Amino acid sequence: MIHLIKIGGNIIDNVDLLKDSLTAFHHIEGRKILIHGGGKISGKVSEILGVSSYFFNGRRITDDITLDIVTMTYAGLINKKIVCFLQSLGCPAVGLSGADGNFIKAFRPSFKERNYGNVGNLSKKSLNLPFLNFLIEKGFIPVMCSITHNGNGGLLNTNADNIAANVAESLIQHHKVSLYYVFEKKGVLLDLKNDNSFIHKMDENTFQELKKKKVIADGMITKLESAFLALKAGVTLVKIGLFIEKKKYGTILTLTKRKIWQKK
Amino acid sequence: MIHLIKIGGNIIDNVDLLKDSLTAFHHIEGRKILIHGGGKISGKVSEILGVSSYFFNGRRITDDITLDIVTMTYAGLINKKIVCFLQSLGCPAVGLSGADGNFIKAFRPSFKERNYGNVGNLSKKSLNLPFLNFLIEKGFIPVMCSITHNGNGGLLNTNADNIAANVAESLIQHHKVSLYYVFEKKGVLLDLKNDNSFIHKMDENTFQELKKKKVIADGMITKLESAFLALKAGVTLVKIGLFIEKKKYGTILTLTKRKIWQKK
Repeated sequence: MIHLIKIGGNIIDNVDLLKDSLTAFHHIEGRKILIHGGGKISGKVSEILGVSSYFFNGRRITDDITLDIVTMTYAGLINKKIVCFLQSLGCPAVGLSGADGNFIKAFRPSFKERNYGNVGNLSKKSLNLPFLNFLIEKGFIPVMCSITHNGNGGLLNTNADNIAANVAESLIQHHKVSLYYVFEKKGVLLDLKNDNSFIHKMDENTFQELKKKKVIADGMITKLESAFLALKAGVTLVKIGLFIEKKKYGTILTLTKRKIWQKK
Repeated sequence: MIHLIKIGGNIIDNVDLLKDSLTAFHHIEGRKILIHGGGKISGKVSEILGVSSYFFNGRRITDDITLDIVTMTYAGLINKKIVCFLQSLGCPAVGLSGADGNFIKAFRPSFKERNYGNVGNLSKKSLNLPFLNFLIEKGFIPVMCSITHNGNGGLLNTNADNIAANVAESLIQHHKVSLYYVFEKKGVLLDLKNDNSFIHKMDENTFQELKKKKVIADGMITKLESAFLALKAGVTLVKIGLFIEKKKYGTILTLTKRKIWQKK
């Protein structure tokens, strides 16, 4: 079993929650991969630099200067701080963008409705699986940020949830895979004002209904679409919610009180 | 022979010179490693963010916010752009900070004269040689930025010339090593206003004399001290100057018209 853990932006923005989550990640036994989002820091940097941020359907519109900013913050500041913290715990982390070792090759989609700029979509051939296997077999822990490349000298801003799902789908060719979307809530909430209104278990029909009713919106749509694609492709289990250890230094890792999808 | 190429800040700042230098690097046959400096981008970002930059003896004084900025720019923007460009040439580059795979562990020195902040000094044990050998043997091309870590969760800003020399000294245990300091001049100049006043060959006595006379100053002192330490440690050859190919797409690489040190 390979554990694929995606840590979301709001965890990144909360240093205590981030350190707790990374400590929990470190205590997972066996093979594992971390994928992290960006958090608010790139927005803050953009603001100070006088660059406006635009989102559409939960996706950042990435012009050239925005690409520079997300590359700085995701692949630089956040990735290296995470790797550095994991290393201090004794976790053999190696931080990677999609360009490093040609790890993830993406392509810029031709959007009809809206031009998202330098964003990358993924295909079945995106992941450099031999490179990933090579790292994992040698005992390294890949820590992936959401910057990919197009193979022609262009970096691309890519949705971290999609990367997580894509990596999961590629890995199932050779491994059992479980996928965790870690974020600051106990699960996907029916009522955003009530932290305990999380859904314990969800199938795709329920998801489509909740989407229609706009109970689920924005970035959560992308996350859930990725999750269901991953399940369809053969991922054993997808979980979403907080990432807390039962005991601070215990080895038992529990993902308590959260929405759970289980493959039928 | 392993070729260790350090590309300086003024090359980084000039996109044409950078692309030419990286293309030349790509055409070097055999095993090679790239180490890059930072350029002016971190200073520009600091300025816009309202953070003052201070230097002493050619070394940046690195408080916490400055560390964040150099981590963003060196390990993020510059490192990933270089890796992405090399990948587009077909060069299997992997970008690394010192934290990744515990590649370079540094320590924060106890300066008596001046507190440089979060800067890292190197020792003989700094380089993770097995990790480096492992990458090189698998055919990967390490692209190293000048951000290291202390092993306790702290990133450190480290002089890229010192990293180049330190890596060279560690590699000579098992390999023949040549070291190139690539910068925007034809060599070390006797007269900064005259680009052709470069020194063709230099020994350490000459260096000490020129240092006393203040013909050589600022960052060049660190570079030359690193170079002579590397030679003493057993590096075969140290060259400094422009990095130009004879023919644009030829495979013969020449480091023409520059100052050359040759081991006696």
